[in-house]
Amino acid sequence: MQIYYNPDPAKWGALALRPVINPGLLAKTVNKILGDVQNEGDKAIIRYNREFSGVELDDFAVSQAEIDLAVDRIDPKLKAAIESAVKNIDAFHRAQIRQENKIQTAAGVYCWRKPVAIENVGFYVPGGSAPLFSTLLMLAVPAKIAGCKQIIICSPPNANGNVAASILYCARLLGIDKIYKIGGAQAIGAMAYGTATVPAVYKIFGPGNQYVTVAKQMVNITGTAIDMPAGPSEVAIIADKSASPIFIAADLIAQAEHGPDSQTLLLTDHEPFLEQVPAEIEKQIKDLPRAAFVQKSLHHSKAIHFDNLEAAVDFSNYYAPEHLIVMTRSSDDIISKIINAGSVFIGDWSPEAAGDYASGTNHTLPTGGFARNYSGVSLDSFYKYITFQELTRQGIKNIGPLIETMANAEQLAGHARSVMTRLEILDGEDR
Amino acid sequence: MQIYYNPDPAKWGALALRPVINPGLLAKTVNKILGDVQNEGDKAIIRYNREFSGVELDDFAVSQAEIDLAVDRIDPKLKAAIESAVKNIDAFHRAQIRQENKIQTAAGVYCWRKPVAIENVGFYVPGGSAPLFSTLLMLAVPAKIAGCKQIIICSPPNANGNVAASILYCARLLGIDKIYKIGGAQAIGAMAYGTATVPAVYKIFGPGNQYVTVAKQMVNITGTAIDMPAGPSEVAIIADKSASPIFIAADLIAQAEHGPDSQTLLLTDHEPFLEQVPAEIEKQIKDLPRAAFVQKSLHHSKAIHFDNLEAAVDFSNYYAPEHLIVMTRSSDDIISKIINAGSVFIGDWSPEAAGDYASGTNHTLPTGGFARNYSGVSLDSFYKYITFQELTRQGIKNIGPLIETMANAEQLAGHARSVMTRLEILDGEDR
Repeated sequence: MQIYYNPDPAKWGALALRPVINPGLLAKTVNKILGDVQNEGDKAIIRYNREFSGVELDDFAVSQAEIDLAVDRIDPKLKAAIESAVKNIDAFHRAQIRQENKIQTAAGVYCWRKPVAIENVGFYVPGGSAPLFSTLLMLAVPAKIAGCKQIIICSPPNANGNVAASILYCARLLGIDKIYKIGGAQAIGAMAYGTATVPAVYKIFGPGNQYVTVAKQMVNITGTAIDMPAGPSEVAIIADKSASPIFIAADLIAQAEHGPDSQTLLLTDHEPFLEQVPAEIEKQIKDLPRAAFVQKSLHHSKAIHFDNLEAAVDFSNYYAPEHLIVMTRSSDDIISKIINAGSVFIGDWSPEAAGDYASGTNHTLPTGGFARNYSGVSLDSFYKYITFQELTRQGIKNIGPLIETMANAEQLAGHARSVMTRLEILDGEDR
Repeated sequence: MQIYYNPDPAKWGALALRPVINPGLLAKTVNKILGDVQNEGDKAIIRYNREFSGVELDDFAVSQAEIDLAVDRIDPKLKAAIESAVKNIDAFHRAQIRQENKIQTAAGVYCWRKPVAIENVGFYVPGGSAPLFSTLLMLAVPAKIAGCKQIIICSPPNANGNVAASILYCARLLGIDKIYKIGGAQAIGAMAYGTATVPAVYKIFGPGNQYVTVAKQMVNITGTAIDMPAGPSEVAIIADKSASPIFIAADLIAQAEHGPDSQTLLLTDHEPFLEQVPAEIEKQIKDLPRAAFVQKSLHHSKAIHFDNLEAAVDFSNYYAPEHLIVMTRSSDDIISKIINAGSVFIGDWSPEAAGDYASGTNHTLPTGGFARNYSGVSLDSFYKYITFQELTRQGIKNIGPLIETMANAEQLAGHARSVMTRLEILDGEDR
């Protein structure tokens, strides 16, 4: 870990830096892939599957037989765990269903909003070395609650040309049967533009590597909505002396194992932790699978001492972490001051892993400082809200003159007239 | 108007086409402007103000004296209209404040969400030929309800180097005093990157010309959130024989006066309208200011006859209009079938102009088919939602084993251990 003491706020910028994805460097490659998929459709998909995943798949749609096989293969213990997690994720997202009433903003002017599910959505589920089936749960459960009509999945095939059984099991559990073995930018292109095999969608969700991220940005510009900008995963831990260095170390290690560019921060007013936590990490990491890998990622981890917790919270808000763990004696005051964070974990018994899998909150969260201006995925990510209004005769009589005045002041005479025409007819009725 | 009879659904694509903004054509210019603003700050702003707005302004921040003067100059009748409109807009957006409870997803697992205002937001308010102060109302009212800490406005200066008095009046009314005389892509750059004079913001709202639109897309990629993609304004009207051709014509004209690329559609099952409405338009347009201009826009307006209203609704959903006016005998059935639209106006007495100014609904809406995957601006546009979770000892005991199973299945041993470590310590406590 890199250790810092009471850094001057003028130097916070350097401490809050994230690895920057430079779309320029990848843009050319991604642009080529997207263009090929748009122009050649399935043919391009087959070619890129060969090139990037090393598999020859004439048919890259997952068959029902493949899903059946996967369902049979999954350990019943894992099945039970997934089902319990789904129950919790469902409960948390179902509580987000909102009831909004029709309101009367002025006499006779009735206005309301209605959430309507986005009809077609597509999920990118990373496979590769580890099949991230939990990502699928986090996307599919709220999409199902919202009522999206068509949900499709793209996930990269492994060397045998298969999508991981755990991903297929989750898809079956959640009633999704359109699954395509496609990875990378070509998957994003397929979902954005559609091919003979893959239906086009209106919104693409899910994390991926830098190619996937850049591809999502590019299709976003041409009209496909995306869940949020993405970057390497992050955790910040705010801890006072009441915290356990064992738990701090365990949570930093968990974050670090996501990849060499994972961001891990310890923010504390308790100086001894700056020695205790690195020592504890060394201890815990010893017999961890992939220890070398995790160690590499922890190399650029930062432990920062602040004179007081207020400064630690200020820094956290400045940094805007994806995940924030708060292990302090009295957390209420700190919690109330958090204004920029994706998801917050409170106390000794709330490890980040709880939110990653099973507590019910969504783990698709804003990284790279985007917690300042973006929310994580929620039920609302699968809706658009349509506004409605209905004015009675009295309603247009009441606000018509206002509209006329304002429209004329904006030099929009046609707008004013569309109201005056109605008011004149109502005047005639009254006479 | 262009007239169509029962178009084959296979041909709907051509009828639903919008003018496409090709970012490629403008990208080079906009990229240069954004780069200059990022590198040179105020100096670039002063230069581009000279070049594009034809004004020499060393100081482009609006002074309090200028605002005072504007407030004095506004017609009391307009002031009163604006104040009434603000009251209605406030009522509609305040009703969107949501109460979400802390929920227990599993025993001892408490999860909740908290909306927190985006701290710094910037509004682009078009000036130019007509000062669109109503846009400012639609953005500032919900931003104030949400509690954004810093709100800034950029609006292009007119030939005299001023921002329209009506815009300044609305800003004062809503307590915004940071107003900058900057238009076009340079305004978007200033708000995204900040200059010595203009503070950087986290999210940019507001419509503009194609340069503004492309600039917003570009800064979005580098981390600044934007309200939504933008394009020319649109209206579709679904009308049966109960509708008034006078009102239909008036509403089409109102939409058309926005600009030559405005999109106007009449969808009807009543064939006589295909002659009556164009005739009525000719009549109403005669003494309208800017008639020639409106006529030009109406030239590519489409009136489409469908055998039945169901097909008209299907086409409307396919087209996904920004504004949809429904003038039919029984509208409930039609309303319930609308799945893609920005804002819907129901009945004879609900002209689109009502929602543009004073009914209370937001007029910042998705155009260009984006109503399929985006909502209009709402109170939520000014928040991000932070999720929180707090597990008790019992909570982690309950879901810990699920997390362990799932994390191991994803080959994330560190995640599993962060839970097991806690469970072991709790086991020790129990003994």
